[in-house]
Amino acid sequence: MSDSSDRTEIKKLGEFGLIDKISGNFINKNSNTVKGIGDDAAVLDMGTHYQLISTDMLVEGIHFDLSYFPLHHLGYKSVAVNVSDIAAMNGIAEQITVSLALSNRFSLEAIDAFYEGVKAACEAYNVDLVGGDTTASKAGLVISVTAIGKVEKGKVAYRSGAKLNDIICVTGDLGAAYMGLQVLEREKQVFLENPDMQPQLDKYTYIVGRQLKPEARMDLVHELLDLNIVPSSMIDISDGLASELHHIATQSGVGLNIHEDKLPFASAMQEAAIEFKLDPNTAILNGGEDYELLFTISQGDFEKVKNHPDIHFIGYINEKSNGLNLVTNNGNPIPLKAQGWDHFS
Amino acid sequence: MSDSSDRTEIKKLGEFGLIDKISGNFINKNSNTVKGIGDDAAVLDMGTHYQLISTDMLVEGIHFDLSYFPLHHLGYKSVAVNVSDIAAMNGIAEQITVSLALSNRFSLEAIDAFYEGVKAACEAYNVDLVGGDTTASKAGLVISVTAIGKVEKGKVAYRSGAKLNDIICVTGDLGAAYMGLQVLEREKQVFLENPDMQPQLDKYTYIVGRQLKPEARMDLVHELLDLNIVPSSMIDISDGLASELHHIATQSGVGLNIHEDKLPFASAMQEAAIEFKLDPNTAILNGGEDYELLFTISQGDFEKVKNHPDIHFIGYINEKSNGLNLVTNNGNPIPLKAQGWDHFS
Repeated sequence: MSDSSDRTEIKKLGEFGLIDKISGNFINKNSNTVKGIGDDAAVLDMGTHYQLISTDMLVEGIHFDLSYFPLHHLGYKSVAVNVSDIAAMNGIAEQITVSLALSNRFSLEAIDAFYEGVKAACEAYNVDLVGGDTTASKAGLVISVTAIGKVEKGKVAYRSGAKLNDIICVTGDLGAAYMGLQVLEREKQVFLENPDMQPQLDKYTYIVGRQLKPEARMDLVHELLDLNIVPSSMIDISDGLASELHHIATQSGVGLNIHEDKLPFASAMQEAAIEFKLDPNTAILNGGEDYELLFTISQGDFEKVKNHPDIHFIGYINEKSNGLNLVTNNGNPIPLKAQGWDHFS
Repeated sequence: MSDSSDRTEIKKLGEFGLIDKISGNFINKNSNTVKGIGDDAAVLDMGTHYQLISTDMLVEGIHFDLSYFPLHHLGYKSVAVNVSDIAAMNGIAEQITVSLALSNRFSLEAIDAFYEGVKAACEAYNVDLVGGDTTASKAGLVISVTAIGKVEKGKVAYRSGAKLNDIICVTGDLGAAYMGLQVLEREKQVFLENPDMQPQLDKYTYIVGRQLKPEARMDLVHELLDLNIVPSSMIDISDGLASELHHIATQSGVGLNIHEDKLPFASAMQEAAIEFKLDPNTAILNGGEDYELLFTISQGDFEKVKNHPDIHFIGYINEKSNGLNLVTNNGNPIPLKAQGWDHFS
């Protein structure tokens, strides 16, 4: 398989290391390529505006388990997570392509259910399905979505723009999608051990919903536009808050402190974490898949959003030498580790 | 898995039926969406020009077999087949995204080999790699590529524009990629039965090369531009000449005749077909994967290209009532069946 007798495992680099290694070998040649690999979306110059292109792959057995993930939710989520990448550049999604590799265990009715979800998401986010590919697969279902969006040239938000003293903001609440996944995995085990058992999901409606039906925060992008705020940096929370903070800090060349008592979470998430004997902070910091927006704003913009019910101010950008810290409730700064996901380990 | 107790198999519709069924449920809402599903690429209005977006998925065990497909060739081909879709709209590719789902049986050296091929293709076609996704897979390798290109608004070539009496043109030669695949499959069987046997590929260099390293015909797009010819319709030959002719005829609402004695092929293809006891016409008409361009031009444009060494004039567009026919060497018209590929059967 390899061209050489040397063999290095992928997990040695991890996903982010792999991306860095790949992108290091490529140089952009076309003058309209403004930004290639390395942010939530590529940026292309269309003259009057910037175009944003983002692509994500969802793989059965890695990103979803069809034993508890309804296909119409999966269709919706496939679109939402890509629209979220466009939102993370402060852009507005307009088109998507959806490609599927699927085995013949899928019926037409199953495919219909998937595309019902795609259609619902296209309507919710006002995007057009303009293409895709449908092919057979010898194994599981693989979904590849590309989202296309636009942003005014002066309003694009990169990961790399955070400045000293900027305020770190996060939308919504964190950790719930991860705890929803834990509940679904547990109910699956219960079912496998005793197929007569009915899943007990009623009290977990909120957190399970966050896992199965995440929303892209396009609403926030429109609100920031209305408020005339351009975030100095932005990213969506797909891998976990800690991991995304590391991306912003590294690409902006800064350090930062976030405060434990400012981290937003839902009580249902906290209750589930306690039930599962997990530290709620672990879910908040490393859970991922909430698809909320993490962004920084200048101090001057604070007045415009300080009373916003869904934006939480969790910390400040600092000197690079400060590193990344979580200031705990008792006032101690502890280094913030980027755990994130590593599917290759 | 399905939401309903009814179950309809995908193969009942086939790939093209499935695409029609999906696209029928979607209505475009954004004013810059000019053309969605149904051609080689989607067409978006960028004000000064049209943008073209095309996406393809390549699945291990369906589209390629790693026991004889070197990874650097696979990287090159993944880009080339998508650039070919942009060429098929008479456009020029500028950017691509490449996503991979791969299992941990792939080493970093294997991924490097794949991206070497991607890089070589990016250089050959002058496109920038601007994004992608890299994820784990529990099974085989899945590659998803999206190509982005542009075309002057007055020069886009759809499948739907063929007019009565237009001349049907095809570039290069046909059937070789298919016969190359037959050789590779046979050598694989020989090897499996006797691992000490060395593959005998020397005399098949041309046809095996057509399978392993196809080129997108961007050169032809540039030449047509220089000659000031806008094809009335165009498509690339990925599924086979007969299948592509059906797409053009159906979408243009016309019939057509092609002539057996005008079909271009390489002698190496013919020799291999005879050796494999196959009718060379089967490989030419239904082989697929040659990635040549099939297009129609008005009679008025014929003078400009009549001496072109790599454009072959294989027939004429006719009334719809005429149907699609192959006029054999003895002058008999026989109905042209669209076989193409059906991975779901």
